[in-house]
Amino acid sequence: LKYDVIATADCVDEENAAGKTVVVLDILRATSTIVTALGFGCREIIPVETIAEAMDAKRKQPDVLLGGERDSLIISGFNLGNSPLEYTQETVAGKTVVITTTNGTRAIRRAIQSKGDVLIGSLLNAGTVAEAALAKGKETVIVCAGTRGEFSLEDIVAAGIIIKEMEEKSGERTLPGSDLAVAARRLGEVYAAKPLQAFYDSSHGQKLAAMGMVKDLEWCARLNSFKLVPFCINGRIKI
Amino acid sequence: LKYDVIATADCVDEENAAGKTVVVLDILRATSTIVTALGFGCREIIPVETIAEAMDAKRKQPDVLLGGERDSLIISGFNLGNSPLEYTQETVAGKTVVITTTNGTRAIRRAIQSKGDVLIGSLLNAGTVAEAALAKGKETVIVCAGTRGEFSLEDIVAAGIIIKEMEEKSGERTLPGSDLAVAARRLGEVYAAKPLQAFYDSSHGQKLAAMGMVKDLEWCARLNSFKLVPFCINGRIKI
Repeated sequence: LKYDVIATADCVDEENAAGKTVVVLDILRATSTIVTALGFGCREIIPVETIAEAMDAKRKQPDVLLGGERDSLIISGFNLGNSPLEYTQETVAGKTVVITTTNGTRAIRRAIQSKGDVLIGSLLNAGTVAEAALAKGKETVIVCAGTRGEFSLEDIVAAGIIIKEMEEKSGERTLPGSDLAVAARRLGEVYAAKPLQAFYDSSHGQKLAAMGMVKDLEWCARLNSFKLVPFCINGRIKI
Repeated sequence: LKYDVIATADCVDEENAAGKTVVVLDILRATSTIVTALGFGCREIIPVETIAEAMDAKRKQPDVLLGGERDSLIISGFNLGNSPLEYTQETVAGKTVVITTTNGTRAIRRAIQSKGDVLIGSLLNAGTVAEAALAKGKETVIVCAGTRGEFSLEDIVAAGIIIKEMEEKSGERTLPGSDLAVAARRLGEVYAAKPLQAFYDSSHGQKLAAMGMVKDLEWCARLNSFKLVPFCINGRIKI
């Protein structure tokens, strides 16, 4: 059972990702939102890094929805923000959503560019993504998006919970080599029964709560409420 | 109770250290060795970054002892390695030791250059260094030396144990702002009753154990066995 954890989007490169199963996490909120949207029938999600790229995609294909955030708020001219609660069945079923966020979509794009076999993880689908990563039979690298180049507690904790699920499902309990992976694993144990607490202990979670997004935090903390594994193919995210 | 944790020596700079109380940790083994040496009567320790600097110091003052490591082993021509067990009363009492190690002495030097008020911490003196940091009444920054620019589990765990001691001694339990500090605090709780396990879970601890240095690990895990706080003044470490 070989796996590693990467602390921020900036640290993903071909050396640590190429040919491996790469699970990308941006728990608050991009990957939780992506899992939710696909769970509610969204056809596919196209992650882009800039607002200009998103606008360009809309010009080419006017029926797409634009989603995402800057400074945690909806982008001017976009259809949707970055709250999973906006991605209801009514809004997204059958649609293509082009999404750009500060850290999450950048982490996904870097993982794709680094030639990883990219899956999208969150607490919402932790168990299913753990199972899928095991089934691929390759080394698994869990990429935490982080926040503007900094270590994010909620991402590391979720990485640990996914590792814990992988250990439980595989029956292997060996600790991995990297110290960050061990730390994640231990923090996953600390918070597995109370993932919402990890959000309240984290600086980004505290910021979102202060902005009135407590319901987003509660949604993102719903461990194992979706049984689906988004994967990336030709720059698109599907299930 | 304001504090932060810095993951590696490379991340120390004037912005995060100047004017603050900076506790430097290189648990395996430099700062554990420094605490041990001063506990056994060593007069003072001069941390230097290169072997050439150490040799130069000895030419100027022939009665100093040279100590330290490269690749965890004693340096050719030096009197002592980096094992705390070598720094016995018989060997070091009344002496000046010039020491150079891969990560620890670099972290100490960077903390001094960054104009921090530098204390030397370890598990051996965790409680006393926590008390001293509180008494200074300034913001405390705990600098983990790390291993060649990477996050080290044993240093982060020790940072968490020192934060835990600070919280207990001050009666304040507020979690701090930085996510790394929260993670350290939680990991400190996980390992406080079994610090040796943190070494066996860490890559550097595993490496030292494989090299036959289990007794060093056992020594470095002796929580609160010295009541002393080394501090830096004019480039020297004293108690």
